[in-house]
Amino acid sequence: MKKRSSQSRCQDSSCDVGLVGLGVMGQNLALNFEEHGYSVAVYNRTWSRTEEFLAKVGPDKRLCSARKPAELATLLKRPRKILLMVQAGPAVDEVIKDVLPVLEPGDILIDGGNSHYKDTERRLEEVASRGILFVGMGVSGGEAGARSGPSLMPGGRKEAWPEIQPMLQAISAKAADGLPCCEWMGSRGAGHFVKMVHNAIEYADMECIAEAYHFFVVGCGIGPREVGEILEEWNRGDLESYLIEITRDIMTVQAADGTPLVHRILDVVPQKGTGRWAVEAALELGVPLPVVAEACFARDLSQWKEERMRASRVLLGPQGILEVGCLEAGIVHWEKALYVGRIVAHAQGFRLLIEASRRYGWELDCAKVAQVWRAGCIIRSAVMERVRSAFLRNPALESLLLDEYFRRELGRHEEGLREAVATSIRLGVPVPGLSSVLAFYDGYRSSKLPANVIAAQRDYFGAHGYARQDLAPQEIFHTDWATEARKAKEKMRNRSR
Amino acid sequence: MKKRSSQSRCQDSSCDVGLVGLGVMGQNLALNFEEHGYSVAVYNRTWSRTEEFLAKVGPDKRLCSARKPAELATLLKRPRKILLMVQAGPAVDEVIKDVLPVLEPGDILIDGGNSHYKDTERRLEEVASRGILFVGMGVSGGEAGARSGPSLMPGGRKEAWPEIQPMLQAISAKAADGLPCCEWMGSRGAGHFVKMVHNAIEYADMECIAEAYHFFVVGCGIGPREVGEILEEWNRGDLESYLIEITRDIMTVQAADGTPLVHRILDVVPQKGTGRWAVEAALELGVPLPVVAEACFARDLSQWKEERMRASRVLLGPQGILEVGCLEAGIVHWEKALYVGRIVAHAQGFRLLIEASRRYGWELDCAKVAQVWRAGCIIRSAVMERVRSAFLRNPALESLLLDEYFRRELGRHEEGLREAVATSIRLGVPVPGLSSVLAFYDGYRSSKLPANVIAAQRDYFGAHGYARQDLAPQEIFHTDWATEARKAKEKMRNRSR
Repeated sequence: MKKRSSQSRCQDSSCDVGLVGLGVMGQNLALNFEEHGYSVAVYNRTWSRTEEFLAKVGPDKRLCSARKPAELATLLKRPRKILLMVQAGPAVDEVIKDVLPVLEPGDILIDGGNSHYKDTERRLEEVASRGILFVGMGVSGGEAGARSGPSLMPGGRKEAWPEIQPMLQAISAKAADGLPCCEWMGSRGAGHFVKMVHNAIEYADMECIAEAYHFFVVGCGIGPREVGEILEEWNRGDLESYLIEITRDIMTVQAADGTPLVHRILDVVPQKGTGRWAVEAALELGVPLPVVAEACFARDLSQWKEERMRASRVLLGPQGILEVGCLEAGIVHWEKALYVGRIVAHAQGFRLLIEASRRYGWELDCAKVAQVWRAGCIIRSAVMERVRSAFLRNPALESLLLDEYFRRELGRHEEGLREAVATSIRLGVPVPGLSSVLAFYDGYRSSKLPANVIAAQRDYFGAHGYARQDLAPQEIFHTDWATEARKAKEKMRNRSR
Repeated sequence: MKKRSSQSRCQDSSCDVGLVGLGVMGQNLALNFEEHGYSVAVYNRTWSRTEEFLAKVGPDKRLCSARKPAELATLLKRPRKILLMVQAGPAVDEVIKDVLPVLEPGDILIDGGNSHYKDTERRLEEVASRGILFVGMGVSGGEAGARSGPSLMPGGRKEAWPEIQPMLQAISAKAADGLPCCEWMGSRGAGHFVKMVHNAIEYADMECIAEAYHFFVVGCGIGPREVGEILEEWNRGDLESYLIEITRDIMTVQAADGTPLVHRILDVVPQKGTGRWAVEAALELGVPLPVVAEACFARDLSQWKEERMRASRVLLGPQGILEVGCLEAGIVHWEKALYVGRIVAHAQGFRLLIEASRRYGWELDCAKVAQVWRAGCIIRSAVMERVRSAFLRNPALESLLLDEYFRRELGRHEEGLREAVATSIRLGVPVPGLSSVLAFYDGYRSSKLPANVIAAQRDYFGAHGYARQDLAPQEIFHTDWATEARKAKEKMRNRSR
């Protein structure tokens, strides 16, 4: 009992790809496939949304519609390739339950939502028993990217890759050198993990840019339009990037009465999903990701709007008093500060990728990750090509901060970051993101950190033991500190007699 | 077939409390109970450890031993009270499985390990079907505390409280006013959650103290002994605390050759367990806990010892150059900095307690939490009594930073923190903990944060919408920023013609 789609060209086994979930992203990806010569079978749980979509796009597109999963399966060429674009979470499991019975071994299910990589690994196993090849794919670029060229980060069952590679690379963004922003990331949850780290870097970069805005508005007393001009200038240099570009755009937009629209926006923003997951993964893997943690918590703090207003009336501290020359110096220092911030955020993020890949055996290639992030995605920037070069020069590079190019750049710019943070502190302008970047930079280049004191404290109260500088780190020592300290005190007392 | 313990006083139903798990903590708690007049039945999976323990303590103690769970059950008065002191994780589930069959409805199982609060909530449900009253209890104070008076944080099935209150309060530490450091925390996982937050504050305080040490050693060029003298002095003022006291002790201890022992300790320390869990809980609940996140990640960074040594040779930046007057100014500023750091760490931690209690319905009483943290535990300090007073003055207090006493103290000390952080930044001494504290303080007292820019960015690329300053926060707006920015540009161009 197969129900045929009304379109005459919609024969059995005629469609190249199935698309499930006609939200904004799904609609745009369907049109993107179609524009690149692929016929698309679309299915949405609520039929009316499918009807609306088809009515909107008109009859001339190579689109077929399915009312039921079985119909979708019938429309697709074998092996079937189905891209799920539904909200991350239980909806993905539901839709998998819907389509699984109509699929055959060898068919390919691609989850293009922002799923947690552990969910992806679970689902991959669950459908494997039915012979289905599961792919977890990060998709970045928002609505516009989905339509005209997103960055795609597929990972999972590699047998699926030859089947889906041509069409995914066709619809993806292309970098300046023509290479597609879609490469195979690695096995199991690798694709969604890479997307999660993409978003983590995005959180960090957005926070640092917002801190620069705050410094100039509160510390130097200029308005959004002037901030926009600074960003415009920066966007021609090392900071060239999509996020600087859109922030510049934002600064120019006015409300109906001619005042800057950004001033009207409530300074409250949620934290959830990928930023938080990245910090959790970092904690689990023991990889420092402090700037992302600060960015997440800065968003949480923004939520306490009413409380912050009360606190601002009773908690003392500098009030962003303007200083002569603040603006001129600020423009110089903050450009460098944001550049260092961006490099450090990438260094932290890529290190998380490296450790996760090592731990989980994904075989991630960092150069390829940077390659697919060069265009189409939110964190595309002039830095990305340099990141790619660093990993091409040395595929075993542990940290971007140790790459010869970046360490020279950091050396040339770190003082700007230092000045930007120190000035903000003097003015009382909060810079959680950039001060975390600086602390990480200074900690990373410290051959000695005061962790020896923490080790001693833990050994004092919890007998956790410690290793020694001069001996093998496996050898663990314990000291009865209280007794030894008492002895030392007595010795001192005797000596002073 | 009941096997009788060899000790003649060990009759059926003769023991007040059962103790399972004879690690260091379990042994010390058993002796503590015994010393307070309670007869204790001890059980350990490995019988030889029980034998060793009994041999060590001698025959005069009111201790009975059990070779099997059934024997343990037989020895105990009804309702049975059994304290589990086994390693957090699967071992707790195993030991519950062992003892569950020999228990009767109304018996009480207390988990005194560092269990995750979600595990505690699960276990509470699991044994409830058997009529067993489960209590998850935080225990702080290390070995010494367990023996002579720990801080105890029980929570879970409140029906158990009247049964266990007398003996738990008897063995617990007592504050200066004589009140026991053991109160009922709240329902379900409340006890272990409170312990987790205790440890989170501990992570933060230890990190900040270590940063102070680092500043003085690297920035001012003094040695551990002089640092110890500074700490000794500080310990007589606002900073009076166990952690300052033991750090002072640590500074005085010398290796055999007379050099400071702390210099010999490897600056590598692990991050795991409760610190990480607290950050995860904070992210889940949307409560900022940045200083704890920085403390966790600082520990992770310490692990990269060899890499840091390499980085120190190639990454440029200030090298802790000594400045004239550094020490004198440092002593003044860092005392204030650590005091603000401690207050902010408590403010973040208590806020996490408040939000968790609200979300999970635990009915935590923050004044009681501060009460049981006044003695016996690692974070006991002069601040704790002030924290307690703040919550007694206003049980609905949202943030310690808004309490009249603390906000005055913060106003008097924040400049010291600002100077300490700014000087460290100039010297290149990493201060992730304290710069996070300062950023949080400045963010918290900001009626306006730059989250409006982040909201606009998210609306630009993801159509996430934004609320407005001048309208109700429920009303969500969306702007087509790219189009509006293009229009604004054209308008500017026309105007300039």
